[in-house]
Amino acid sequence: MILRLRPDITPAQHEQILSAIATLSYKPAEVRTQFHHYIIALGSVDIDIRKLGQLKGIADIHMVTDTYKLVSGQWKVNPTVIDLGDGVHIGRADLAIMAGPCSIENEAQVESTVAHLLANNVRIMRGGVFKPRSSPYSFRGMGLEGLRLFSDVCRKAGIKIVTEVMQVSQIEDMMPYVDIFQVGARNTQNFNLLDELGKIDKPVLLKRGISGSIDELLQSAEYIFSGGNERIILCERGIRTYETASRNTLDLNAVPILKEKSHLPVLVDPSHGVGIRAYVEPMALAAIMAGADGIIYETHANPEKAASDGAQTLNFAESAAMIIKMRQTYALRQSF
Amino acid sequence: MILRLRPDITPAQHEQILSAIATLSYKPAEVRTQFHHYIIALGSVDIDIRKLGQLKGIADIHMVTDTYKLVSGQWKVNPTVIDLGDGVHIGRADLAIMAGPCSIENEAQVESTVAHLLANNVRIMRGGVFKPRSSPYSFRGMGLEGLRLFSDVCRKAGIKIVTEVMQVSQIEDMMPYVDIFQVGARNTQNFNLLDELGKIDKPVLLKRGISGSIDELLQSAEYIFSGGNERIILCERGIRTYETASRNTLDLNAVPILKEKSHLPVLVDPSHGVGIRAYVEPMALAAIMAGADGIIYETHANPEKAASDGAQTLNFAESAAMIIKMRQTYALRQSF
Amino acid sequence: MILRLRPDITPAQHEQILSAIATLSYKPAEVRTQFHHYIIALGSVDIDIRKLGQLKGIADIHMVTDTYKLVSGQWKVNPTVIDLGDGVHIGRADLAIMAGPCSIENEAQVESTVAHLLANNVRIMRGGVFKPRSSPYSFRGMGLEGLRLFSDVCRKAGIKIVTEVMQVSQIEDMMPYVDIFQVGARNTQNFNLLDELGKIDKPVLLKRGISGSIDELLQSAEYIFSGGNERIILCERGIRTYETASRNTLDLNAVPILKEKSHLPVLVDPSHGVGIRAYVEPMALAAIMAGADGIIYETHANPEKAASDGAQTLNFAESAAMIIKMRQTYALRQSF
Amino acid sequence: MILRLRPDITPAQHEQILSAIATLSYKPAEVRTQFHHYIIALGSVDIDIRKLGQLKGIADIHMVTDTYKLVSGQWKVNPTVIDLGDGVHIGRADLAIMAGPCSIENEAQVESTVAHLLANNVRIMRGGVFKPRSSPYSFRGMGLEGLRLFSDVCRKAGIKIVTEVMQVSQIEDMMPYVDIFQVGARNTQNFNLLDELGKIDKPVLLKRGISGSIDELLQSAEYIFSGGNERIILCERGIRTYETASRNTLDLNAVPILKEKSHLPVLVDPSHGVGIRAYVEPMALAAIMAGADGIIYETHANPEKAASDGAQTLNFAESAAMIIKMRQTYALRQSF
Repeated sequence: MILRLRPDITPAQHEQILSAIATLSYKPAEVRTQFHHYIIALGSVDIDIRKLGQLKGIADIHMVTDTYKLVSGQWKVNPTVIDLGDGVHIGRADLAIMAGPCSIENEAQVESTVAHLLANNVRIMRGGVFKPRSSPYSFRGMGLEGLRLFSDVCRKAGIKIVTEVMQVSQIEDMMPYVDIFQVGARNTQNFNLLDELGKIDKPVLLKRGISGSIDELLQSAEYIFSGGNERIILCERGIRTYETASRNTLDLNAVPILKEKSHLPVLVDPSHGVGIRAYVEPMALAAIMAGADGIIYETHANPEKAASDGAQTLNFAESAAMIIKMRQTYALRQSF
Repeated sequence: MILRLRPDITPAQHEQILSAIATLSYKPAEVRTQFHHYIIALGSVDIDIRKLGQLKGIADIHMVTDTYKLVSGQWKVNPTVIDLGDGVHIGRADLAIMAGPCSIENEAQVESTVAHLLANNVRIMRGGVFKPRSSPYSFRGMGLEGLRLFSDVCRKAGIKIVTEVMQVSQIEDMMPYVDIFQVGARNTQNFNLLDELGKIDKPVLLKRGISGSIDELLQSAEYIFSGGNERIILCERGIRTYETASRNTLDLNAVPILKEKSHLPVLVDPSHGVGIRAYVEPMALAAIMAGADGIIYETHANPEKAASDGAQTLNFAESAAMIIKMRQTYALRQSF
Repeated sequence: MILRLRPDITPAQHEQILSAIATLSYKPAEVRTQFHHYIIALGSVDIDIRKLGQLKGIADIHMVTDTYKLVSGQWKVNPTVIDLGDGVHIGRADLAIMAGPCSIENEAQVESTVAHLLANNVRIMRGGVFKPRSSPYSFRGMGLEGLRLFSDVCRKAGIKIVTEVMQVSQIEDMMPYVDIFQVGARNTQNFNLLDELGKIDKPVLLKRGISGSIDELLQSAEYIFSGGNERIILCERGIRTYETASRNTLDLNAVPILKEKSHLPVLVDPSHGVGIRAYVEPMALAAIMAGADGIIYETHANPEKAASDGAQTLNFAESAAMIIKMRQTYALRQSF
Repeated sequence: MILRLRPDITPAQHEQILSAIATLSYKPAEVRTQFHHYIIALGSVDIDIRKLGQLKGIADIHMVTDTYKLVSGQWKVNPTVIDLGDGVHIGRADLAIMAGPCSIENEAQVESTVAHLLANNVRIMRGGVFKPRSSPYSFRGMGLEGLRLFSDVCRKAGIKIVTEVMQVSQIEDMMPYVDIFQVGARNTQNFNLLDELGKIDKPVLLKRGISGSIDELLQSAEYIFSGGNERIILCERGIRTYETASRNTLDLNAVPILKEKSHLPVLVDPSHGVGIRAYVEPMALAAIMAGADGIIYETHANPEKAASDGAQTLNFAESAAMIIKMRQTYALRQSF
């Protein structure tokens, strides 16, 4: 059960609500986000919520039977729109596109990518500076220094930045430079990281775990929301199966399922989802027809020389061609 | 290595080719299909095929490094088109649509479905009369009697029939009534059945195994082709993973991969692929953008009363709406 | 609900039972096996079986809530013992061992294997003559001719034969030579084959599907039992997962689960379960401690030269050493 | 390539080694652990290591072709023994047993568990105080307060403590109370946490990821070792598959594979591995026969009232009975 409280609620009203919840043998959890104040009441007995709803100080009240609550589509019918400022949105009536290299390598690379994005009217650039790598001996990213140069170039160009955060201690340092914090597939159930991202007022792009279920993805999003941050974007990026012909198995079933189960915007990452350059475009277009609000993919001036993930990275010509097709595909879907 | 022989090859020329292959320590397999006569030569030493190619009686010769040979895209660049007669094709420049109930139930059901298909200009009807069921106590289909009434109605209407064959002994009985023999996901590696389907001159729709790999699907297709039947259609229908929010995990990555690895047409079955009615349409549209040559799905006048698979079956209104969108989506893809 | 009928039941009593079942809105299925006559009654309303049980002609009656019925442990508490004659049993108080090559190759091979088995007091030899192979160009076994020589040598030595049957049409030809028909992992849901194996009075070793669930394995066994054959042995042989360090993932959890859910004996195949020679022995011993009634594994005089599966095949010295350890491990388990 | 340096190496010798490595176009990584000083040299050209080995200051030198290096069994043939002090070891010639509740709940619970362990001569107690939970509303453990009472009771009794650490910031606070830091299955690829655990001189029990490969587990162990901590214990705890009859699929194949690929001790957790109380004992015994150095499992005075994981938790009587059988099983294996 979710109770959204009125901003002008009095302490006495608040007290009364909590004691009514206690009477029902429900357990309350207080959630204060950047936008609202909620009480999540958890319990198992059947109750008539109208009675509770008549108490003063409550803006609205909803039964939610899902194990996740605040991210559920059961209480909030309208889709959530993430406003990044400067006219950049995710989840509104146009396709969100995030493109860029796997890893930030140097200033020239960022500049060429930004030029490519501007030429194609793309407003969000991806690029990793902290790279999770299976082996400790692999290149682990340029770190904060890389993030600063990434930010310097993008700010001037009006390009927003999405980049991965790997641990709690990085959040504060990254804060001035980042527009969207990305949580990678290995950290989808790093609950301490999710807790901390709940305390900030920046959007979070939450990737599905390497073999995470759809339900677990939503519960991880619930960590962020219940921690205080409503600005969450979900991302399908392929799951681990027995099939070896592709890097991962892109689970596009997840797109319409997530869109129904939750009010949060849903992105798809076809680069990791299939892992082979030639198939990134068809999978991006497929993701859009499946209902995705946006696409995040890897592009690089010279994929063969990319520091990482070159085999699944588009060059700029391929990227530009795909952007046109993605927008036409999205327009067709919107016309239905 | 594939050698396509000339129709006018003489016995002496044939002998000479076989002895040249033996000299190379390659092992030959003779394949006679309804269209051509091939020799598949298997070996591991590197050879210069041009020398072999100069022998008389050879129409063309190709190196194929895949484990499957005749179904590989390496030797036959042009996509295979399956001609069902009466102007019905699969793999040509329009979307192949196959629709109908999970199970054939009675004549009225077939008639109403045929009317629905005709009204929407769909020329192929699916419907099971032999049903593989996990439990021996479940409804196992109407059998041959059902197939006869299915055929009676469809023939009059000019509708082609695709239906599942489960065992070798059924092939002969089914032959007069069937336009496409379907091999179900539990029989993808029923090699004896594949052998026998190689001996007939009717198209075979081969579904991917429940947890079959893309490579195994192509090797199973190779059984049919090398048995003598070139008329094969591949079908992605979802694979088994840990995810329980959908019936199967529809692996659309398989579509562009199969299209590149093979010259055979590729269909997608979104009904089994996601297993939930509301998501069949987005997954069908996604499959088309991923590159599918056609869609096979379940529709029924009254899905709630269907003998099987009702939860994933569209009613006729939903089906009609989806057909329009599928064709628009296909047209957009063709325009790229 | 399972009703076991008395052998001396009269037609009138039988009729009365069927009509009582109909009154309850239950659907009856008659099952006549080599040992008993049953009625399986399927329905969903709650009933008091004692009332039914008072009808004449019923030996005993049991509620079974599983989807499978006759193979369930809910109605038959005592484990099933398979008697192969000549003092050879499966499921009794000693470990069943079945060993031999992947493929029967020639008479000398069978003779040397039989000598090895006799020297180690093993009474059942495995060996394939019909081999399911992913590629049509691979060696597909010696066929019936191989089976005859296999049988000739084994009969003289008092060794029982277990070998794979791949299709219905082979059953009759194989019948004189086979002691246990094996259903391979690709045919676990070949329902027509299971139906036919239900009609014969020879034991069937039913392997779990390549990615079959435990529940599906039991339902496939139900096909055989309800077809009329109670003599079924279940076999865990590894499932398909994302892990590539082993050929399959041997699911030993399945052993205690199957032993509780069913009264049928359970074997484990560590050769296919791990697929690497050095690990066959530890996995065989582990399987025994998990509760297996027997082990089926591959051994060959010269694994490097085996026609198939050499990498997972033990030589005779390794096999002999493992047999001793398996028996000691089994003895320890029995002592608990 | 791993170079173990002599403790008395001079700066000049060190410099000479690095320059020899550079000449070979290899990339060096310096690793200083609590025991030794290594240089890991990564490169792809074939070299003759004997020439390098003649340089002064090198104790020994080994080629390691695995992607992981220091945890590989290729350079260190003798198994690693973890000494916890007071005569408690892991990886030596007796079975390591770690038992206790899923969650620490209160002092009485710890005391009764300790009494149970002492009565059965078990020296290591498990118990969680920081609990990773899918839902943010679930009980997340008693935290540091719980750890202190856990430690107070155990220290007096001479019992060692293994407990999960979830994030970097907890390490310092936990340090005084913990004997083994456990990394849970959701954190196996939390590389920042692994980095930090590399800097401490306490053993780390590293669980395999929820769908982690054997190779990834070893690479994660390499993070800890190359960070400076050689005291690592690997733990198989079941992987995620499609099978729903058990909580996870316990992959006992991993035990002999890990024992061959690495010199580190390998534990198995049958409680999470199967997730059903009745099957914990057979799976523990199976794990021992597969080659496990120890077993970690859940026990509680009253599993039905446990704060978490009750369904897979043994009561003390079951635990005591299992301990006897585990030791007998281990003794049999050692006798082979």
